[in-house]
Amino acid sequence: MPLALDPAAQDLLFREARTANTFTDEPVTEEQVQAIYDLVKYGPTAFNQSPLRVVLVRSAEGRERLVKHMAEGNRPKTASAPLVAILVADNEFHEELPALLPHFPQAKDMFFSERPVREQAAALNASLQAAYFLIGVRAAGLAAGPMTGYDAAGIEKEFLDGDHKVLMVVNIGKPGEDAWFARGPRLSYDEVVTTV
Amino acid sequence: MPLALDPAAQDLLFREARTANTFTDEPVTEEQVQAIYDLVKYGPTAFNQSPLRVVLVRSAEGRERLVKHMAEGNRPKTASAPLVAILVADNEFHEELPALLPHFPQAKDMFFSERPVREQAAALNASLQAAYFLIGVRAAGLAAGPMTGYDAAGIEKEFLDGDHKVLMVVNIGKPGEDAWFARGPRLSYDEVVTTV
Repeated sequence: MPLALDPAAQDLLFREARTANTFTDEPVTEEQVQAIYDLVKYGPTAFNQSPLRVVLVRSAEGRERLVKHMAEGNRPKTASAPLVAILVADNEFHEELPALLPHFPQAKDMFFSERPVREQAAALNASLQAAYFLIGVRAAGLAAGPMTGYDAAGIEKEFLDGDHKVLMVVNIGKPGEDAWFARGPRLSYDEVVTTV
Repeated sequence: MPLALDPAAQDLLFREARTANTFTDEPVTEEQVQAIYDLVKYGPTAFNQSPLRVVLVRSAEGRERLVKHMAEGNRPKTASAPLVAILVADNEFHEELPALLPHFPQAKDMFFSERPVREQAAALNASLQAAYFLIGVRAAGLAAGPMTGYDAAGIEKEFLDGDHKVLMVVNIGKPGEDAWFARGPRLSYDEVVTTV
């Protein structure tokens, strides 16, 4: 047994979990999203910088404003998923850093005084947190449908300010009929891992 | 119970898991790394592009070549961890795409013929896979110590070619004495999540 994680959990999070393209009508509750966040907030980021922000699209009007910026092939599922979340990187995350890193509050000015440095750090670390979030959706027994096919500038203008960058849009819910394609192949260990 | 994932698994992967700065001498076996990869390879990426590559640093000579490019504060732990992995984004991932996406092999040329587009896609999707990898290390009952404090150009020149970009360096092993600081605070749900 090379893994300590229970096989049922392995299946739930990775082996059986799939990107869903259709969903049932069952709503995704506020309590579920809160439980997901309260689990995945512990995932590591550099300097605990925690730059991920989430916009939950719950209103019909918000949904309409989002769908028009999605790539055509992503519109029907974005329109019909029980819940849609816009995952965002906050390029001004350094403002919270003294509170997040109380033993080293100087990090804010020592490392993150320049915007291009922050943008690079936020892109990496919010992406890590986006992955934790997808795992968290699966931990809640739900399926995630992450998408990057959209007009990013359009979404940013519609929902965000100039300090926030969209990373992905995620449909969330219980998988519906014909929810996914056949599982795509994966690269083998030897294709991915080299040893020096 | 808003989460389907077993509480012990929640603890193993998120709540009790911590970024380790010291490690015991217990080796990390090839079998463990293979089991980690064979679990986390199923984590989703856009178009199944799977751009993560991993360089395992196992030889004493490789370790020496790596440590000299690390930031000073990261050198002792990088020198002493049982295993160190360099996580890398492959900017030429599109070469594998027809094999990875057999139902849509045109994606390679339709979407990824331009290098800047590939670099942006690889940065996001390899970062997602880096997060899955960190979760996988924890799933193996090991601790990860991810680091971004290093001379990236130095590591790339030392270990990679011009098509690969270093994302992070990860120490891996069983946590040793005084392995971590007190857990840093996290942003609250209301600081991270807004609803429209």
